[in-house]
Amino acid sequence: MTDEKLHRFVDQLRSSDLSPHIVTDQDAIAPWLTDWRGRFHGRSPVMVEPRSTEETAFLVRTVAEHKVAIVPQGGNSGMVGGATPDQAGDAVLLSMRRMNAIRQDLPEEHAIIAEAGVILQNLHEHLEGAGLRFPLTLGGKGSATIGGLVSTNAGGTQVLRHGTMRALVAGVEAVLPNGSVFDGLAALKKDNRGYDLNQLLVGAEGTLGIVTAARLRLCPAVVDRCVIWAGVETPSAARKLLLFLEREAGSAMEGFEIMPQHCIDNVLQHIPGTRAPLAGNHDWHCLVEIVRDDAGDMGSAQRAESIMARAMERGLINDAAMSASEAQAEAFWKIRDSIAEAERAEGPAVQHDISVPVADMARFIETVAPETEKRFPGSRAVAFGHMGDGNVHYHVTAPTNSDADQWYAGAAKDISQWVYDQVAAWNGSLSAEHGIGQLKRDELERLGDPARLFALRAVKKAFDPDQIMNPGKLINLASPGDST
Amino acid sequence: MTDEKLHRFVDQLRSSDLSPHIVTDQDAIAPWLTDWRGRFHGRSPVMVEPRSTEETAFLVRTVAEHKVAIVPQGGNSGMVGGATPDQAGDAVLLSMRRMNAIRQDLPEEHAIIAEAGVILQNLHEHLEGAGLRFPLTLGGKGSATIGGLVSTNAGGTQVLRHGTMRALVAGVEAVLPNGSVFDGLAALKKDNRGYDLNQLLVGAEGTLGIVTAARLRLCPAVVDRCVIWAGVETPSAARKLLLFLEREAGSAMEGFEIMPQHCIDNVLQHIPGTRAPLAGNHDWHCLVEIVRDDAGDMGSAQRAESIMARAMERGLINDAAMSASEAQAEAFWKIRDSIAEAERAEGPAVQHDISVPVADMARFIETVAPETEKRFPGSRAVAFGHMGDGNVHYHVTAPTNSDADQWYAGAAKDISQWVYDQVAAWNGSLSAEHGIGQLKRDELERLGDPARLFALRAVKKAFDPDQIMNPGKLINLASPGDST
Repeated sequence: MTDEKLHRFVDQLRSSDLSPHIVTDQDAIAPWLTDWRGRFHGRSPVMVEPRSTEETAFLVRTVAEHKVAIVPQGGNSGMVGGATPDQAGDAVLLSMRRMNAIRQDLPEEHAIIAEAGVILQNLHEHLEGAGLRFPLTLGGKGSATIGGLVSTNAGGTQVLRHGTMRALVAGVEAVLPNGSVFDGLAALKKDNRGYDLNQLLVGAEGTLGIVTAARLRLCPAVVDRCVIWAGVETPSAARKLLLFLEREAGSAMEGFEIMPQHCIDNVLQHIPGTRAPLAGNHDWHCLVEIVRDDAGDMGSAQRAESIMARAMERGLINDAAMSASEAQAEAFWKIRDSIAEAERAEGPAVQHDISVPVADMARFIETVAPETEKRFPGSRAVAFGHMGDGNVHYHVTAPTNSDADQWYAGAAKDISQWVYDQVAAWNGSLSAEHGIGQLKRDELERLGDPARLFALRAVKKAFDPDQIMNPGKLINLASPGDST
Repeated sequence: MTDEKLHRFVDQLRSSDLSPHIVTDQDAIAPWLTDWRGRFHGRSPVMVEPRSTEETAFLVRTVAEHKVAIVPQGGNSGMVGGATPDQAGDAVLLSMRRMNAIRQDLPEEHAIIAEAGVILQNLHEHLEGAGLRFPLTLGGKGSATIGGLVSTNAGGTQVLRHGTMRALVAGVEAVLPNGSVFDGLAALKKDNRGYDLNQLLVGAEGTLGIVTAARLRLCPAVVDRCVIWAGVETPSAARKLLLFLEREAGSAMEGFEIMPQHCIDNVLQHIPGTRAPLAGNHDWHCLVEIVRDDAGDMGSAQRAESIMARAMERGLINDAAMSASEAQAEAFWKIRDSIAEAERAEGPAVQHDISVPVADMARFIETVAPETEKRFPGSRAVAFGHMGDGNVHYHVTAPTNSDADQWYAGAAKDISQWVYDQVAAWNGSLSAEHGIGQLKRDELERLGDPARLFALRAVKKAFDPDQIMNPGKLINLASPGDST
C-alpha cells in the first residue's frame, strides 16, 4: 500500500464515527509495537480503540473495503509475537482494551459474559464475593485480556482440573472478516447447527475474525486452599508424586507445577521479597495447589497435611512445606509466576512452550535436557511448568557473556530448531499453550504434517482470502509445498 | 455423471486393492438406502466397506480424482437423513461398519482409541470390568457407531454431567477431502497449533472428511446407580425439581429426563414387557439417574432415598419410585428409550430436536405446546427429553386417520416451519443433538444469521470445493442469499 493510499484511509477513519477513538500520535502507539518479550518490533500508522462491537464491525468493514491489514491486540503480553504488526507499517493496530465491560452476570447459570478488553485480574476481582470464580490464571493476569486469552486458547496453572480456555468458553461474539457479527453468546447447552464456530475462533489468534466478547464458564468459589511445596530429585520422581496425588486428592488438586533449583535461585536473586520455601537445595521442586470449593468437603489444609504425610511415608518427597496462610500461598505462587521475569533479568534465553504425551514428559526432560547442553556447550536447559498437562516451558539460556543480538540471530535459532525436532520425534506439539504467532509460524510449516497444513490453510483462505486479519501470523496462505 | 462414466469408475474400484470390499448387489445395498425413520430414500450403485484408514484414504483419493460424491454411513440410525444418499444415484455409499477395531486401551490415561465402525454398545461391553466407562449412551446404542456419534456430535441422556461427544472426543483421525490423513489421536493434553481441527471434524456430518477413528475420554465406572421416577404436574414443576437436585445431588446426578403421560401411555401400549413405574397418572414424569462412581462416596440408593424424602417434604413431587435393582433401573430407562419407537407405531409425527436456553425450557413447552395444538387442530404436541440440557424432542403428531404421505408432504412441513420460528424467537437452536443432515438444511438456511451462514459455507468451500463429501447435507455451497 502506498503512503498516499494509507493516508487517505486514515483520513477516512478520522471522518467516521470512530474518529474519537483513533490514535495517530506515534509516541502513544509506540509502547504497543513491541511484544512483551521484546523480540518483535513493528510499525503502524494508526491505532484504533473501539468501544463497541458495532464500532469494531465498522472498522473491519472499512479495512476490508480498502484491503488494509488489521492486527488485533489485547494486553500485549503474548509470548509469540501474535499481536505485533510487522515492519511494513501499513497495518492498523486494533486495540481491544477499551471494550472492557462485564456485559452480564449469570450466576444461576454459572456463567458471565465479558468483553474482549476485560483484564483477567479484573474479572477475578469482579467475581469476588459472588460465590463463583473463573478458574484460569497465569503470570500475566494483570495485563492479559479475555480477548487475548480466547484468541490464544490460553492455559495457565489450573488446566489440570479445569482445562484451557477452550474448555471454559461457552461461546464467543466475533466480527468476521466480511464485517458480519457472529453471535455465539446465547445460553444454549446443546447446539448442533453445523461446524463449531465458537471453537474455531478460540485459538485462532485473530486470523479468522476479531473476538469482541465471550461467555465464560464459572465454577464454585474456593472456600480455602493450601499450597504444598515439595522437593524431589528428578522429574520422574515428580511424576510419581503427581500420580499419587491424582489418586489421593482427586479433583481437589488444581495445579501441579515443577521447577528446577536453578529457576528458584534466579527468582530469589532477581525478584524482591521472595524467599525459599524449603531450607536446603533440591534438584527439583513441585508446587501443588489443593483446593476446597465445596463447603461439604474436608478443609484443604487438613487434606493436604494427610496426603503429604502419606507421600513422605512412601518416600515420594524429600522435604515439603505447606502454606499456613493465604499470604504464604500467594508467596509460593509468586516464585512460580516470577520465573520468566527473573530469567529475563538473567540474560538471553530462548523459550519453548512445548507438550509431549503426559506420560512421557519426565523422560523427555531427563533425556533431552542433557543432550541439549551437550550439543550447545555453555547453554543451560531449564524445564518448568505444568507437569500434569504434559506441558513444560523448555528454556535454553545463552552461555555467559553472550552478545544477545548475535546469539538470538544465530545459536538461538539452531537451538530452537533442534528442540522442536526432538519434540516432533516424541510426538509432541511445538506449541502447548502460547500459540504460533510470528515466532513459530515457519517451524509449524516445517514440521506440520500435510493434512494439518492443508486444513489450516483451507480455513484461513476461506475466511480471509485477502489476508487482512492479522497477516503473517499462524499460517501463511502461499507455500511452495502447498498442493491445494 | 453419466452411467457410462459411473460404470468405469466402479470398474476401476473393482480392479483396485479395495475390490474385496466392494458391494454392487442392489439387494445387499438396499437396507442402507433408507434412513432409520423411513423419511429419506436414496440410490447408490456401489457400497464400499473399507477395513482400514489406508483403504479409506485410497477410496477418497479415487473419488476425488473422478469427482464422484461419497456418502459416509455408520449404523444408519441418524435422525436427519445425514447418511442417506440422494435419488440421483451417482454417489458412493461408504460404510464404515467394518472398521470396527478397538485400537488401543489406555486405562492409565482414562482413554481409548476406537475405530469409526465400533458400535456404541460394543464399546460399553468392551469396557466392562475395566473400572472405566464411556459416559455417553442413547436409545440407538445397539447400532450407532463411534464415527456417526462423532460426526453428529451426539448427545444422549448423560450430557447433563458429561457433555456431548464434543466434550468426550480428545482427538480424531480423519481422511480429508484431498485424501490426506489428519491424525489427532496423539495423547496431547495441550496443543495450540492453530485452529482446533479435531473439534472442527466433530459434528461436521461427514461434509469435511471421513472420521476413521477417535480417541475418547473415559471416566470411572459406575459402582452403583439408582433411578428415580417421579410424577409432577408441569414442566415448571420439573424444573424446580431439577434445580433442587442440582444443589442436593451435585455431580451424582447424571441424567434428568422429562416425559408427558401421553408418551408413557404409548410405550405401555406398543412396547412389550413395559409397565408403569407409578400407580396413577401424572401429567409429567421425571426420570433421574443418580450414580456413584467413586468407592468413597455414599451409595446411590441411600443418596437417592434421602434426596427424594426431602423433595417430597418440600412438595416438589407428587409421587415417586426408586429402582430397587439394576434390572428395574434398566426397565425405567427402557420406557424412556422406547418413546420414539412407540410413537412410530402410533402413526405419523414430525420430530423437532430443539434447544432453548436451559432456564427457559419449561416456559417454552408450556407456552408453545398449547399454541401448536390450537394452530394445527387435531395434532398433539409432545415434548420429552433432556430438561437439564435445555433440549427437548418436540414432536407433533398427525390428527387421527391422517394419510401419512399427504400429511408429511403438507401439514407436517407447515408445522415444522412454525415450530422452528418459535425456537428462533426464543433464541434457541433448531438442532440440539441430531444435527442438520438433509432434514434441516433448508431451515438452517432460512433461519441462520448471515455470519453463521458465511462461516459454514466458507469452511465447507475451503475443504471440499468440488462438493464430493456428503453433498446436500448440512449446508449448500450455492445460495441466492450468499454474499461471499
